[in-house]
Amino acid sequence: MGEAVRLAVIPGDGIGPEVVDEALRVLAAVSDGTDLEFEQTRFSLGAQRYLDTGDVLTDDDLVAIKGHDAILLGAVGGVPGDPRLAGANIERGLLLKLRFELDHYVNLRPSVLYPGVASPLANPGHVDFVVVREGTEGPYVGNGGTIRAGTPHEVANEVSVNTGYGVERVVRYAFAAASARPRKRLTLVHKTNVLVFAGSLWKRTVDAVGAEYPDVTVDYLHVDAATIFLVTDPARFDVIVTDNLFGDILTDLAGAISGGIGLAASGNINPDGRFPSMFEPVHGSAPDIAGKGIADPTAAILSIALLLDHLGRAGDAAKVRDAVAADVAERGDAKRSTSEVGDAIVARIGA
Amino acid sequence: MGEAVRLAVIPGDGIGPEVVDEALRVLAAVSDGTDLEFEQTRFSLGAQRYLDTGDVLTDDDLVAIKGHDAILLGAVGGVPGDPRLAGANIERGLLLKLRFELDHYVNLRPSVLYPGVASPLANPGHVDFVVVREGTEGPYVGNGGTIRAGTPHEVANEVSVNTGYGVERVVRYAFAAASARPRKRLTLVHKTNVLVFAGSLWKRTVDAVGAEYPDVTVDYLHVDAATIFLVTDPARFDVIVTDNLFGDILTDLAGAISGGIGLAASGNINPDGRFPSMFEPVHGSAPDIAGKGIADPTAAILSIALLLDHLGRAGDAAKVRDAVAADVAERGDAKRSTSEVGDAIVARIGA
Ligand SMILES: CC(C)[C@H](C(=O)O)[C@@H](O)C(=O)O
Ligand SMILES: CC(C)[C@H](C(=O)O)[C@@H](O)C(=O)O
Repeated sequence: MGEAVRLAVIPGDGIGPEVVDEALRVLAAVSDGTDLEFEQTRFSLGAQRYLDTGDVLTDDDLVAIKGHDAILLGAVGGVPGDPRLAGANIERGLLLKLRFELDHYVNLRPSVLYPGVASPLANPGHVDFVVVREGTEGPYVGNGGTIRAGTPHEVANEVSVNTGYGVERVVRYAFAAASARPRKRLTLVHKTNVLVFAGSLWKRTVDAVGAEYPDVTVDYLHVDAATIFLVTDPARFDVIVTDNLFGDILTDLAGAISGGIGLAASGNINPDGRFPSMFEPVHGSAPDIAGKGIADPTAAILSIALLLDHLGRAGDAAKVRDAVAADVAERGDAKRSTSEVGDAIVARIGA
Repeated sequence: MGEAVRLAVIPGDGIGPEVVDEALRVLAAVSDGTDLEFEQTRFSLGAQRYLDTGDVLTDDDLVAIKGHDAILLGAVGGVPGDPRLAGANIERGLLLKLRFELDHYVNLRPSVLYPGVASPLANPGHVDFVVVREGTEGPYVGNGGTIRAGTPHEVANEVSVNTGYGVERVVRYAFAAASARPRKRLTLVHKTNVLVFAGSLWKRTVDAVGAEYPDVTVDYLHVDAATIFLVTDPARFDVIVTDNLFGDILTDLAGAISGGIGLAASGNINPDGRFPSMFEPVHGSAPDIAGKGIADPTAAILSIALLLDHLGRAGDAAKVRDAVAADVAERGDAKRSTSEVGDAIVARIGA
């Protein structure tokens, strides 16, 4: 590398800071003795920052974050129903704003059921797939409005915006990902029979790009059918490409069947490299267990592996995943603290 | 009753006619010796009708169907990818058109895991809930469009339309349903943190109507979290109320965890009684197994129970459900033909 990687760290709220601490210890352990160096800047963002200052994400914050090579985020969001947060939508104003402003058009969410990890499914089989979720379009664009609010004549609309440009780039990423995996299978998930305009764009794009990837086997599932297969035959999936909202739904379900969102990592990726990519556990800030030192930091630690992949350090990423795999295989039902899990994984990396 | 119930029967495509035959046998068996009489009219609609005539659903069809008291539908849709069907969208042009034209604003989908039925979940617990899915609004309205199709500058939009009128009436139905059930719990499922306009309308409506139902316990889940609970703790649900698209997704998943969509029944209900309500299995036409006499007619038969409920014949509906419950309890892995399942259930009703 030569130069240090400038890492913006956003611990966030609730259990965010706790799991980020362990993730950073793992990052330190795996970089130790290599040429990989990190220069960290902490950003205080989230519900607490809003309560303290009234700011969610200022222009200055955004400029400062853009000056980094990558971002590690814990979790953001306050206690649900906290009246002091009623005026703020931390998710839209912070998390989604970062994804949109930093053009994170690939939201990468692997689902791996590690040996030894319990699944709610009786016979999950070999679960090892990745969801390539579009991150900057679809129903998430915030394009909607309300008229006559609060009257019986209220109309509230939400517009899902899908562009040829936006769909093609994420579909290309998904084909490249599928082509690099042993099974080389890509499943498009949408709802083409109902959302005919957006569905047609996605379908035509997958057909067109697919012509350039004769080695990749492509199939299509309606989103409703996809949820059925996720519980009856998750092993059928290799790479799933889908829109922002369907990807949100499918990846929570995928996390649940592969051992819980305590294990689910994600990367919000700007493959162009114009903006820093952001790595975060799929779980939220879990205010109910915050401060107790019992949050599972594994998803945050696996997000470090995705960060290392992104930095071109596949070998280091593999070390993190191997340490996690070895740890979860022996975990059983033992209740360990957040730092004990971190200790165990750090120890395996050092070994 | 006195007068015969005018029942429009739409067997449809694939396995539709096969399962409808058994459902009608069960209907005959349960009405036998009662004052309940049916006058049936068969409508030939679906992919085959389209292939034969080029029509999906004519105005005359619609007028004729409206002259009935209720509708039994098997399943519609041809072989996926059949080039002769490329110009037709049978789902939108027939199924959704009926739901919209007949103002089926409640799409009622119970999920019951009958004793003896295998679930893909290791520990499903006691699954017995019902999804009240809105049926005439949301992303299903077909309000969208495409510009610059087929160019890199294509934009394809889909508008989810939600009205105070439309949301309130389905929410009222859901509260009444929850209030009539022993557990009296209602869960609103939406994505209020992202779809802020539609989400706010749903949330405010549930809060307002909920004030009239102090006996009903209300909670809220984001749709992504709801899919997690459906696989980790489905027993937590009693009544779910949700929009058209989320309801589509949740009910397929709910069907899967409660024994497969071979058992999932649904009612497309116009509670005002201005238009005939329509009862149909959740499953599709399954062209791959059509004509083999191996389709499971249980979902169609359970749809008869929903029809009987709708006609105010709760006792007859219970007879059908009890017969199904007894049958599935003894079913095990035995492979039976469509008519053998019908025979068995008819025999139990006669007994
Ligand atoms: C918090 C929320 C806005 C977010 C999303 O919907 O994308 C979350 O559910 C996720 O999946 O990262
Ligand atoms: C066939 C399709 C249009 C339909 C829907 O999306 O409503 C089906 O999935 C259902 O759930 O009845």
